[in-house]
Amino acid sequence: MTGDQPAAHPAWLPDKAFRTVGSRHVLVCADGPLAQTVAQEVAHAAEQHGGSLHHRPAGQAAPHPDGDNAEDGSGTEAHGGTSNGSGAAGEPRFDLVLALTGADDLPEAAAMVLAELDWRSGRGMLGAEGFALGRRDGVTVVLADEPAGLLHGLFQVVRLGETAFGATQPIEVHHPVTARRMLNHWDNIDAHPVMGQVERGYSGGSIFWRDGGLTPDLGRVRAYARLLASIGVNAVTVNNVNVHATEARLLTDRLGDVAALAEVLRPYGIRTHLSVNFNSPVALGGLPTADPLDDGVRAWWADTTRQVYAAIPDFGGYVVKADSEGQPGPFGYGRTHADGANTLAAALEPFGGVVHWRAFVYNHTQDWRDRSTDRARAAYDHFAPLDGQFAGNVILQVKYGPIDFQTREPVSPVIAAMPGTRLAVELQVTQEYTGQQRHVCYLGPLWHEVLAFEPWGDGRTVAAVAAGRGADNGPTGFEGGLVAVSNVGDDPFWTGHPLAQANLYAFGRLAWNPHLDPAAVLDEWIDLTFAPAATADPGLLRQTLHEVMDGSWQTYESYTAPLGVGFMVRPGSHYGPDVDGYEYTPWGTYHFADRDGIGVDRSRATGTGFTGQYPQPWAQVYESADSCPDELLLFFHHVPYTHVLHSGKTVVQHIYDTHFEGADRVARMRSRWAGLAGLVAPDLDARVRERLDEQSRCAQEWRDQINTYFYRKSGIPDAHGRRIH
Amino acid sequence: MTGDQPAAHPAWLPDKAFRTVGSRHVLVCADGPLAQTVAQEVAHAAEQHGGSLHHRPAGQAAPHPDGDNAEDGSGTEAHGGTSNGSGAAGEPRFDLVLALTGADDLPEAAAMVLAELDWRSGRGMLGAEGFALGRRDGVTVVLADEPAGLLHGLFQVVRLGETAFGATQPIEVHHPVTARRMLNHWDNIDAHPVMGQVERGYSGGSIFWRDGGLTPDLGRVRAYARLLASIGVNAVTVNNVNVHATEARLLTDRLGDVAALAEVLRPYGIRTHLSVNFNSPVALGGLPTADPLDDGVRAWWADTTRQVYAAIPDFGGYVVKADSEGQPGPFGYGRTHADGANTLAAALEPFGGVVHWRAFVYNHTQDWRDRSTDRARAAYDHFAPLDGQFAGNVILQVKYGPIDFQTREPVSPVIAAMPGTRLAVELQVTQEYTGQQRHVCYLGPLWHEVLAFEPWGDGRTVAAVAAGRGADNGPTGFEGGLVAVSNVGDDPFWTGHPLAQANLYAFGRLAWNPHLDPAAVLDEWIDLTFAPAATADPGLLRQTLHEVMDGSWQTYESYTAPLGVGFMVRPGSHYGPDVDGYEYTPWGTYHFADRDGIGVDRSRATGTGFTGQYPQPWAQVYESADSCPDELLLFFHHVPYTHVLHSGKTVVQHIYDTHFEGADRVARMRSRWAGLAGLVAPDLDARVRERLDEQSRCAQEWRDQINTYFYRKSGIPDAHGRRIH
Repeated sequence: MTGDQPAAHPAWLPDKAFRTVGSRHVLVCADGPLAQTVAQEVAHAAEQHGGSLHHRPAGQAAPHPDGDNAEDGSGTEAHGGTSNGSGAAGEPRFDLVLALTGADDLPEAAAMVLAELDWRSGRGMLGAEGFALGRRDGVTVVLADEPAGLLHGLFQVVRLGETAFGATQPIEVHHPVTARRMLNHWDNIDAHPVMGQVERGYSGGSIFWRDGGLTPDLGRVRAYARLLASIGVNAVTVNNVNVHATEARLLTDRLGDVAALAEVLRPYGIRTHLSVNFNSPVALGGLPTADPLDDGVRAWWADTTRQVYAAIPDFGGYVVKADSEGQPGPFGYGRTHADGANTLAAALEPFGGVVHWRAFVYNHTQDWRDRSTDRARAAYDHFAPLDGQFAGNVILQVKYGPIDFQTREPVSPVIAAMPGTRLAVELQVTQEYTGQQRHVCYLGPLWHEVLAFEPWGDGRTVAAVAAGRGADNGPTGFEGGLVAVSNVGDDPFWTGHPLAQANLYAFGRLAWNPHLDPAAVLDEWIDLTFAPAATADPGLLRQTLHEVMDGSWQTYESYTAPLGVGFMVRPGSHYGPDVDGYEYTPWGTYHFADRDGIGVDRSRATGTGFTGQYPQPWAQVYESADSCPDELLLFFHHVPYTHVLHSGKTVVQHIYDTHFEGADRVARMRSRWAGLAGLVAPDLDARVRERLDEQSRCAQEWRDQINTYFYRKSGIPDAHGRRIH
Repeated sequence: MTGDQPAAHPAWLPDKAFRTVGSRHVLVCADGPLAQTVAQEVAHAAEQHGGSLHHRPAGQAAPHPDGDNAEDGSGTEAHGGTSNGSGAAGEPRFDLVLALTGADDLPEAAAMVLAELDWRSGRGMLGAEGFALGRRDGVTVVLADEPAGLLHGLFQVVRLGETAFGATQPIEVHHPVTARRMLNHWDNIDAHPVMGQVERGYSGGSIFWRDGGLTPDLGRVRAYARLLASIGVNAVTVNNVNVHATEARLLTDRLGDVAALAEVLRPYGIRTHLSVNFNSPVALGGLPTADPLDDGVRAWWADTTRQVYAAIPDFGGYVVKADSEGQPGPFGYGRTHADGANTLAAALEPFGGVVHWRAFVYNHTQDWRDRSTDRARAAYDHFAPLDGQFAGNVILQVKYGPIDFQTREPVSPVIAAMPGTRLAVELQVTQEYTGQQRHVCYLGPLWHEVLAFEPWGDGRTVAAVAAGRGADNGPTGFEGGLVAVSNVGDDPFWTGHPLAQANLYAFGRLAWNPHLDPAAVLDEWIDLTFAPAATADPGLLRQTLHEVMDGSWQTYESYTAPLGVGFMVRPGSHYGPDVDGYEYTPWGTYHFADRDGIGVDRSRATGTGFTGQYPQPWAQVYESADSCPDELLLFFHHVPYTHVLHSGKTVVQHIYDTHFEGADRVARMRSRWAGLAGLVAPDLDARVRERLDEQSRCAQEWRDQINTYFYRKSGIPDAHGRRIH
């Protein structure tokens, strides 16, 4: 699937993962580019594994028994092996049918499934991307209202493997929880002097851009689109939210490059979005102002957007980082963020596009001496008052925590504060603060916890808010989405650390269905990626990967910043420990450790009042150090080192214990992985070993720096007398 | 004097500084390029100020009374103003005679001076660069054995101003204390991705290199050479001691660029040296090894060096940073540094060249947990055992302190440990750790203190060791030199901060004569640079500059790392405070602060034993916290915060007091400077104000971070109740 570059690792879509589909006789009844993609997938699998593809438009009659008439008209047929696809005389015998609900002349099994569906809730309920999956009469059937649903259904069949072809299955209907499941790429066209080509990228260069322009390797982009389609991601931004000079021009004279990427992404059901610079009317348009209420500015956005849609009719919309970390924004013109977002939204509205407007707005030139300013408060303080003022096609994109993608943060109170605004929750697949793809850190459990968090404690989850679901699970009219920062680059393994592929996989799967168990998602990923059944000791491989990955987020947390206090990383790179690295900086990220205690008092009673941004019950739970969950204690409270946690340990002993245990756990991960020798490909094995070596070194460094720092500061010895420096 | 670029600031050689010489009638009796430089200086001054130049070769008869015959032969004559240069009938009347001692037919006054000199010690005593200066019979006379001496003498007359033309003066003989007074440029041809074009440069780009090659602005190089000649610097390396790939080739296929620079530097008495990469035989020569004892390697160096001298007959030699911070060296081949240095020395020896071999060798991948390894020990441990093993044309170049150019360090014990080795002492004019030319930090007092330090407490100074002088001040046969890292760049003011020009000036003057009082050197610099006599309020300007600059080193020390402990700077940039920035790094630069105390125990009794590298009396003085000087206490000892200094204050109160006072002093410097409005050029004034603003901000940041850090750690409040955060 790749172009002029050495073949990239197939990630979770190796040919062998398609064995169960590829060895079957498959009928695809659907038209259009996405249906073509489905057919191509089946055809390629059939070539590898001896099955066959029969593809006919939804409106075409059934193929002739001998299959020859599939060659007529627009129908196509592919045979893999020696067997033919015909079953009983007079009708071909298919093992798998993927058909649009509107297709004519459905095979019997498919018609049975459709009848059941109709009986349940009526045709058309599957929507733009949903599908129904069932098995009747020895035939596995995928039905969808639209071709995108068939594509998702095909990959579901691939995931299920032989299970999809076993006993008769009840009909399952699959819908994505939210219509918008997006990846943001922080890719620059020109390598940034400090941030490089991919900002916070740990996987080589960009897959979209190379040598100052569009990549010549569109095959790699196509392979990426296929991976995304298989996990249900349906939107991508192709450039960094920090939009530098060259990248700003993607909106105008470099628009052709965006169109070329959209061309590749489209057949996989992925819409292309663009990060734009709020200052574009000045920088690109030559206007004297970018004031969003200026008529000329509004006209410029309208005109420019019209040209974008002329080139890319299914263009998704804009992503905007405004008034944030040096990026321009409406504050520069005395306007609100609603003013800013709505101007861009008005330009996109006639074409069905949306603005993703980031809520990551805070003072990044804070004075560390000023304890009254609290960065955690910033997004709420800026945006909650604007609830209800945003246009219908504005989606406010909110980072899941109030600070910045730390290993452990409370859920952002903004998510509960804006019922009249469409909210997208932003996660970070790229491991900026979670080991930078040198450390194993499977993030599925973190995201699952975030998405399942109940801001009101009443069953409504974060995922429900993003999906625009209210207390009764009914639509609120404010559907947002789930967004994540991608972790891929032109690295042969896509993600630097091969096991970090699982994070990309898990994001897509959890964005589709947040109720999935992260360990089960990991199992899917293992089965697809390694096809353990094909290895000498499938149990060992699966068990080892679970042991290495399941708890790796908590392991990472255990040897880094303790109890939710965050940061303590090297400034700039954000890799490795530096306890005081951010303590005296303008970034608003402090721990306030002194000889007596540590933590940030964010209570209403004595601190910054941040706990007051939460609804009940959390406003009360977080307010008191007694009720605050241990893992967030230092995020919300400044306590003595001798404070006793719910665990029964003192804070300082907890720090010592978790850091010794964390480093030990990494050592065990490394030795567990070593036991896989010969069960995984040598290049992948070598890469993982190299990373585990570094993780082990780095975990020890964290352990020793953190423990030494707190021992020097507190003077309290480890209860177990272990070596602290 | 500059070429195609905007004129650089004249630094301490503005035309007006030449008024007293330029308004006189001057005779120059000498031949050769340096004599030509002397004549050009006089001629230019005469043009500006109305005097005249009469120049004749040393072997030519006196000019005819009307001066016309100066036009004959090789003699030249220049008139500036309306007066002519003739005095009594039959002989021109000169105010200033600069003549070689071997010149024929000296004017009467010069002959009188020469006779006195002969009487004192015989002709030829002035040496290669010395000169005699006296005034007899109303004529000021400079005599020298060699033209370089005349050049130095001319600039001495310029410095003296009218004093040189006052009453009859006793004859003074001026010699440089050491024959080698060198500046190292850490300039790269290609900008380094991290370090930029000038490593640790704070003054813009390189004056030697631009756009990947030789600068087209050789006029700027010429202006620099003139500045250096005026302060007695006679050697320059034109590239960084960290020799990257492009710069390595200056030794071979880019040698022409070096020759072009040598061509410009030569008429100012400056020899060109080159930093070379120890690995050159491999990287440039294609040899399989750079083993210094390999015959092929030795032949490669010999042959390469022969070609260097073919292009640059007066080439000075090589500077080598080997086995240091990642640079290759003899350790890679199991050889000693004597083996390495001697191989290069053998190649240079036939041509009179020298190797400056840097002693800055230490483990830069140290484990911070290991308190037994002490970076301060490294240079001594590596080099002292090699004393006596270096070839006669190897000069071991030793940083003045055992760590790395900190604001306060003890003098390196290596300087007292190698009596059988030529030692050059390396200073740092570029303000890497002393404010980076954003802070006023006049370094004359620091260098004066270092050069006057008596390693054996017996009158022999560091300067004497560098000069190869023994206990009786007699020659030891091991003359080294004084070297400094330059602070200039292509900045219009040469040095970023205009007042940092004084550091370059002071280095040259102190290298020539370490006995000079730094405040007197500053007076020279003020008189030349600002010609205060010409300003409306000369007293105010001089007084203000002294107030701002005299104590600025101690001021800088007072608000940065306390009591000799060093570092506490931001890693990488080395600018601004970060108390723990280097505490857990591999660099060997730690302070070991805990809740009880701070400092590095380098005693023999309980510490790393570093004090034992010193001879008496210092081995004993430094060994005890009681006798150790306050300003070095934390360099040598780990003490409680409550330890009482000789000053009567506790360590922690000293920290608070000096930091509050230091920031206050900077505020006063700023307001003092503001009082000069109108007395200095507007562009210079603006630049200094901008830098003082930053210094003030940064000093407050240092104050607050340091005080907060120690308050949080010690819990001891400020005795005066000032605000600590």
